[in-house]
Amino acid sequence: MDTSQSSRSSQQSAGHIIVEGQSGVLVARINGGPHALFDAALTKQLKELVDRADRDPDIHAVVFTSTHPDRFLSHSDVGWLQKGGTGFPPINTRIAGLVARTARLINRVPIVRTLAGMTRLKTLLQLDSFHATFLKMNASGTIFIAALNGSALAVGAELAWACDLRIMADGDYVIGLTEVLLALTPGGGGSQRLPRLIGTQQTLAAVLEGRPFTPAEALALGAVDEVVPQDQVLARSIERAEYLSRRSKESLGAIKRSIYFGSSLPLEQGLQFEHAEFLVRDQSKEAQRRMLDYIAATDATGELPLLDWEKYARALSAGGIGGSSRV
Amino acid sequence: MDTSQSSRSSQQSAGHIIVEGQSGVLVARINGGPHALFDAALTKQLKELVDRADRDPDIHAVVFTSTHPDRFLSHSDVGWLQKGGTGFPPINTRIAGLVARTARLINRVPIVRTLAGMTRLKTLLQLDSFHATFLKMNASGTIFIAALNGSALAVGAELAWACDLRIMADGDYVIGLTEVLLALTPGGGGSQRLPRLIGTQQTLAAVLEGRPFTPAEALALGAVDEVVPQDQVLARSIERAEYLSRRSKESLGAIKRSIYFGSSLPLEQGLQFEHAEFLVRDQSKEAQRRMLDYIAATDATGELPLLDWEKYARALSAGGIGGSSRV
Amino acid sequence: MDTSQSSRSSQQSAGHIIVEGQSGVLVARINGGPHALFDAALTKQLKELVDRADRDPDIHAVVFTSTHPDRFLSHSDVGWLQKGGTGFPPINTRIAGLVARTARLINRVPIVRTLAGMTRLKTLLQLDSFHATFLKMNASGTIFIAALNGSALAVGAELAWACDLRIMADGDYVIGLTEVLLALTPGGGGSQRLPRLIGTQQTLAAVLEGRPFTPAEALALGAVDEVVPQDQVLARSIERAEYLSRRSKESLGAIKRSIYFGSSLPLEQGLQFEHAEFLVRDQSKEAQRRMLDYIAATDATGELPLLDWEKYARALSAGGIGGSSRV
Repeated sequence: MDTSQSSRSSQQSAGHIIVEGQSGVLVARINGGPHALFDAALTKQLKELVDRADRDPDIHAVVFTSTHPDRFLSHSDVGWLQKGGTGFPPINTRIAGLVARTARLINRVPIVRTLAGMTRLKTLLQLDSFHATFLKMNASGTIFIAALNGSALAVGAELAWACDLRIMADGDYVIGLTEVLLALTPGGGGSQRLPRLIGTQQTLAAVLEGRPFTPAEALALGAVDEVVPQDQVLARSIERAEYLSRRSKESLGAIKRSIYFGSSLPLEQGLQFEHAEFLVRDQSKEAQRRMLDYIAATDATGELPLLDWEKYARALSAGGIGGSSRV
Repeated sequence: MDTSQSSRSSQQSAGHIIVEGQSGVLVARINGGPHALFDAALTKQLKELVDRADRDPDIHAVVFTSTHPDRFLSHSDVGWLQKGGTGFPPINTRIAGLVARTARLINRVPIVRTLAGMTRLKTLLQLDSFHATFLKMNASGTIFIAALNGSALAVGAELAWACDLRIMADGDYVIGLTEVLLALTPGGGGSQRLPRLIGTQQTLAAVLEGRPFTPAEALALGAVDEVVPQDQVLARSIERAEYLSRRSKESLGAIKRSIYFGSSLPLEQGLQFEHAEFLVRDQSKEAQRRMLDYIAATDATGELPLLDWEKYARALSAGGIGGSSRV
Repeated sequence: MDTSQSSRSSQQSAGHIIVEGQSGVLVARINGGPHALFDAALTKQLKELVDRADRDPDIHAVVFTSTHPDRFLSHSDVGWLQKGGTGFPPINTRIAGLVARTARLINRVPIVRTLAGMTRLKTLLQLDSFHATFLKMNASGTIFIAALNGSALAVGAELAWACDLRIMADGDYVIGLTEVLLALTPGGGGSQRLPRLIGTQQTLAAVLEGRPFTPAEALALGAVDEVVPQDQVLARSIERAEYLSRRSKESLGAIKRSIYFGSSLPLEQGLQFEHAEFLVRDQSKEAQRRMLDYIAATDATGELPLLDWEKYARALSAGGIGGSSRV
């Protein structure tokens, strides 16, 4: 206990998130202290921000960046991780067996709920409460963009990969999963979201080694979407956020869910998932209005608006075709 | 009703498919009217063609192309889509909840069967009856090739991605998913098949934006397999179809199912799926005959035929090694 | 029966595996006879080796290579495959139906267990007993590397793709799945592991054709990890094996399982799978010791060791940071 207390005081003052803006595109500046660490306080504030951005129809995007000059997020507060592994007596075989069997029973009882009832594990489970927050980001109609002003290791990379787009600063920065070097394994979704971004083999080789990617490597592999000079990272991220924000928030949510969740399902189930999302959108007032206008425009001009490249380009810029602008 | 009637009359005369050939490689020319639209009539004819091609052992491939000079398929008849969203009273929360919950209950009761019993939704469900047709294309030993003589948006792209190969015309054409611009979400499998072709991240960025790919972009990403001059699209597609057609139709079906369905399953289940397909093929008369001939050829020459590059090249050209040609 | 007897005698003397080393990195030289064939004897010896390497905490990696001058493994003993398809009377529709239905019932009763009870199928099932061995390789903390000294077709390629890394000899060699040319379909995991390595579309096109990849093609697609001159294949493979071997065997296993199995699950289930692996690692003695040392080093120097590029580079080389070297 002494050790984790002293480490906490030396490594970390409680992190906080400074949010700019009330609607449209918010900028969320993560302050993880002098070491740019992710801790319990940041977990809680991240959850509150994501909940609000998801719920509020006037918030269309959140751009995450950091107050640190050359780091996005270093990694977790290691004292917090270490304490999480010691919140109960030396591992007994009953728990170990339960955990191990979960791998095979994965389709039945989710371990999280089972373990949550065991009070001694609460500290450890709290470490991973951000899993639910990351999943909510994936399911939301709000767009999340990581403006990577610097390096992002472990949970820093995992937060970036839970976003919809990643714009990374060029320079002496890295992004990657370092857990193996501490005899750990990724715990914030990195081993799940990175293979879905860049494929299993590139992920496997890098994560087994604990080797991070330079900006150029990350871009070539698809682990980030753009690399720009550091002083343009935030502006470019906001620009991408604003472009996407002009589209229907409900459609963006349906598309994100279909791709993130649907396309990870067996093909037939994924198609049913997509179908359900389509049913809801097709009967929405906004889609109905846009379709009626599209039909009227076709009748008036004798051509399908989307097959007229100039009109298509204007629709991309405006975020929609047919119907008045977003209400 | 007036609106959808007038839109129907102005946008669309009933589409039809002109099929050339009776066996071997069929060419199916899709006529979607002056606007090259996909509608209910085409859905029905597509189903009949796919059913026949799948069932008839003498039909080995179908090449889809279009009668329009520079479009493969523009997109759906929007009046049809729009009417599909209004076939029942303003959405009530019970239905909305049912649909929404499906996303989470996806492993249990498929929504389609549940909703199908609700007669007011029949029109809407009919819109998506081509889902089953596209799945049959994926499961069939018949090879389907999209000869993209021009642009393909929305369901046009989705039909192409449900094929086994895509040969696209070079030029001022595009392929992509535009649904977000009408406040919709893809409904014909695009959000499921495109990520399985080109990865989730490239799919996500394009579909959130509603941005299509040029032929060069589509080729670089893997969204099409070849780009050739427009006047060579059909010939090249037939050439690829004939090459594949020389192989065992039953083997082609087993391979397609293993890759399309099996590789979308959890790894262990995918391996069991492949195993079942292998069991059936291994005891087939054609495989037994080819294996016995292969053994005899090895004995006669002292070398494994497939390890002799000249014999291997001839086998690729002939569609098989050992055994007489396909019966 | 005569045919399969004569083929067995002519094609194949019983294969065996020569293992060099007792701990650390083992080199396993596969001797598949003059034709470099995979047979029942090799299946059994492979299982024993993998079981031992997985269980023994002092074995960190196995490098597979071949005693043949220019082949890794040609393919299976075809007489063995052919006999497997004839171990019971001409296929009856009840069995065929059972197998076929499995494709749709895949989430319920695994076919293997059902069929295993039917004694007439035992020979056939034995053919595929290496499935379990390949899965154990994927789940193990031991690293498996294919040192491809030459060509690898069918099961030869499937063994390579069940390894964690593949180093291939440059030259007139190929790797690929040839099954369609014998009217078969891949049965050793190739149709499942190759799409997870290089994507479904590249896999589909190659496997439908029965076309193999040259070393350059395989490298470009990601079907192998490195191509080097033939005389450096083994040395380079051992070098990669030793580098990875310095890391915690338990962490390597957790990472492999999370990526191979977890990332093939629906996203939410994959995240739960990863979470379970993290729980076990976080409370391990080795991780606890390394984390405490990491905290102490941060306190002593005022900087996070992993954010100091020189220390990070040393950690990659040493296989870990914090804590004494691996016990």
